[in-house]
Amino acid sequence: MKIHGYRKLGSSRRLAIYLEEKGIEIPFVPVNLMEGEHRTPDFLARNPAGLIPVLELDDGTCIGETVAIARYLEELHPDPPFMGRDPLERARLEMWQRVVEFGVYTQLRAYVRQTSAFAKPLEPVQMPEWGELNKRYAMDSLRMLDAQLANNPFVAGPDFSWADITLATCIQGGRPSNPFELPGTCEHLARWYDQVSRRPSLVATQPD
Amino acid sequence: MKIHGYRKLGSSRRLAIYLEEKGIEIPFVPVNLMEGEHRTPDFLARNPAGLIPVLELDDGTCIGETVAIARYLEELHPDPPFMGRDPLERARLEMWQRVVEFGVYTQLRAYVRQTSAFAKPLEPVQMPEWGELNKRYAMDSLRMLDAQLANNPFVAGPDFSWADITLATCIQGGRPSNPFELPGTCEHLARWYDQVSRRPSLVATQPD
Repeated sequence: MKIHGYRKLGSSRRLAIYLEEKGIEIPFVPVNLMEGEHRTPDFLARNPAGLIPVLELDDGTCIGETVAIARYLEELHPDPPFMGRDPLERARLEMWQRVVEFGVYTQLRAYVRQTSAFAKPLEPVQMPEWGELNKRYAMDSLRMLDAQLANNPFVAGPDFSWADITLATCIQGGRPSNPFELPGTCEHLARWYDQVSRRPSLVATQPD
Repeated sequence: MKIHGYRKLGSSRRLAIYLEEKGIEIPFVPVNLMEGEHRTPDFLARNPAGLIPVLELDDGTCIGETVAIARYLEELHPDPPFMGRDPLERARLEMWQRVVEFGVYTQLRAYVRQTSAFAKPLEPVQMPEWGELNKRYAMDSLRMLDAQLANNPFVAGPDFSWADITLATCIQGGRPSNPFELPGTCEHLARWYDQVSRRPSLVATQPD
């Protein structure tokens, strides 16, 4: 098996953190987005959506989408369980993972891609106003998550989960040395971030 | 059990179609978004993210997020299987479901919410230019899905799945009588849409 993507960047990093937490070793093969490698026929044959990461099995079968890949690996390596131990727990973890994806990830991604000069090759048209508006929406979601973290050690409850990986990598935005500033009133979120960002899985996948 | 949401609208409808396909009966309880019912303390206690649908169990436990709810119900009602029969099939279905969500659903939702007068109460700031740009991106994704459907009866392969439900409800945009116009060159997508839109589950959940 191999993963097409960057071990220390974006959604590929979410997968790298998951692998560290589970103790699974799979090599990463870089895909040069800035030079458009994700739009070449070779890459599109692996994932027609043109997105990384992609898991390639030994027989050449490819699976795209970070969460689909992680769930596949979870079925091959069920212990220790990372996506819930019973139907209700699995539903709760998936719920919070999606709340983070649709309330923080999408918005901060829009902010970075619509307002950063470096992202210009990835966005046919940049609309900085949309980026700024989405940063505000992300902050609203972070305040909601602060309330959730007032009553729970981690985003989805008592255990570190996939929802925490998604949120932590959003906040670090590919740049753990310069994370997004959290809303000043969010003390529970700050406590959570301080704790999660020190986990060996996050430290081991920090960009150099 | 009950579902807070509209049986014939938006993501709640995705769930209603799933219930029809599986033969599960759960009543829907309307939530008046236009009057801000999703922002009341009562509703936010059920789902802090302020989104419908929400599944409420008999003991009051609530689960938000359409896909999390469907996966929970799938665990209670595994036959006939609707989200894959083995790890690879489950991964493939989840991959395509997400490709549709992040490549078509998000974009067409942005188009409707950023450009329609009726959506004004739901969007603090409307940016029609962003909506129009996203309609173009959705059309790019539909062309990619047309190629997928040239080689597969359904979006994720040989069987009707959750990915088809997501795509069909996107295209119908809550208005089956007036669906989004598909790109003219997409004959395979048109064949698929003609077939899927006639399924009893979609017909039974059509807005009046």
